[in-house]
Amino acid sequence: MAHINVPEGVPGIRSLVMFRPETGKPLYALAQVLLRDPSPLTPAERELIATHVSARNHCMFCMSSHAAAARELFGAEQEVVDCVIEDPSTAPVTDKMRALLNIAGKVQQSGKSVTPEDVAEARRYGAGDRDIHDTVLIAATFSMFNRYVDGLASLTPTDREAYVPMGKRMATLGYVLPQPQPAS
Amino acid sequence: MAHINVPEGVPGIRSLVMFRPETGKPLYALAQVLLRDPSPLTPAERELIATHVSARNHCMFCMSSHAAAARELFGAEQEVVDCVIEDPSTAPVTDKMRALLNIAGKVQQSGKSVTPEDVAEARRYGAGDRDIHDTVLIAATFSMFNRYVDGLASLTPTDREAYVPMGKRMATLGYVLPQPQPAS
Repeated sequence: MAHINVPEGVPGIRSLVMFRPETGKPLYALAQVLLRDPSPLTPAERELIATHVSARNHCMFCMSSHAAAARELFGAEQEVVDCVIEDPSTAPVTDKMRALLNIAGKVQQSGKSVTPEDVAEARRYGAGDRDIHDTVLIAATFSMFNRYVDGLASLTPTDREAYVPMGKRMATLGYVLPQPQPAS
Repeated sequence: MAHINVPEGVPGIRSLVMFRPETGKPLYALAQVLLRDPSPLTPAERELIATHVSARNHCMFCMSSHAAAARELFGAEQEVVDCVIEDPSTAPVTDKMRALLNIAGKVQQSGKSVTPEDVAEARRYGAGDRDIHDTVLIAATFSMFNRYVDGLASLTPTDREAYVPMGKRMATLGYVLPQPQPAS
């Protein structure tokens, strides 16, 4: 049961933004700009970074929902998602993406863990300022979402199938604030 | 030096939102709603939670700037800020605030660290759903800001005096997005 009185049966962050839509609005706006608006990283690559950080934080809800979105977006190459959850060092990703996932993993621990060498490694494989910025901010943002969702013990479905329609919605519609439920 | 090419001489998060105002906009909107809009917690108490989490993450820029804002807002009772940075368990705060700072400290580690007992302790001293929600989201949000600021190695002034005018601005104007610098 969640630590506060949120709408029953609504999973994860959706229940929290229905409790407090005033903070939900900038949170969803941030997710939309960061994960869907133009970036040198594709939406699939950005969902992969979000999935990786959420897996490292053992946030089942965020990991499962963003993995489902990433699978939708990768399509035929979707096995990369489970490979990254398992071990990014051996996953079938480009050298650039491996270097960015390394930076994201450092940010998950602490911002101070990112070294000039980590950044130089990403640049060596073609990453520019925007790739590095977006990687760090996605990793930082999911360090927030993971703590918000788990810190309030929001509802986390345990069946992988439950996340498939969520992933489809996130892949096609993006991050659209759910409407507050009418008082019953 | 920062890991990416941000405006020179601009400290902390301000340099990062000038680099990427599109994400800066929802980030500043979130800070304004969360730290200044109506809440059962005063702006001073909310800045104290932000300071506590930033201190635990050793984020010198966020700790120093939000401590400066908290000192402005606490006025005559501003010594509480340094006491909380030192040790919240002995700081001159209410029992309710001590229980909420404990929850914030748990969120700083991991959302999963917050127990039903932590929440029950806060409720025993009068905390309601909104106090608990806002505490968890502030702690989660600063887990993000700290990682964004340090993960990109943004400029961090080391002189405490440098943060005094920032604190005054944050206490009086709130969180207003800095304008991008004109191309020179």
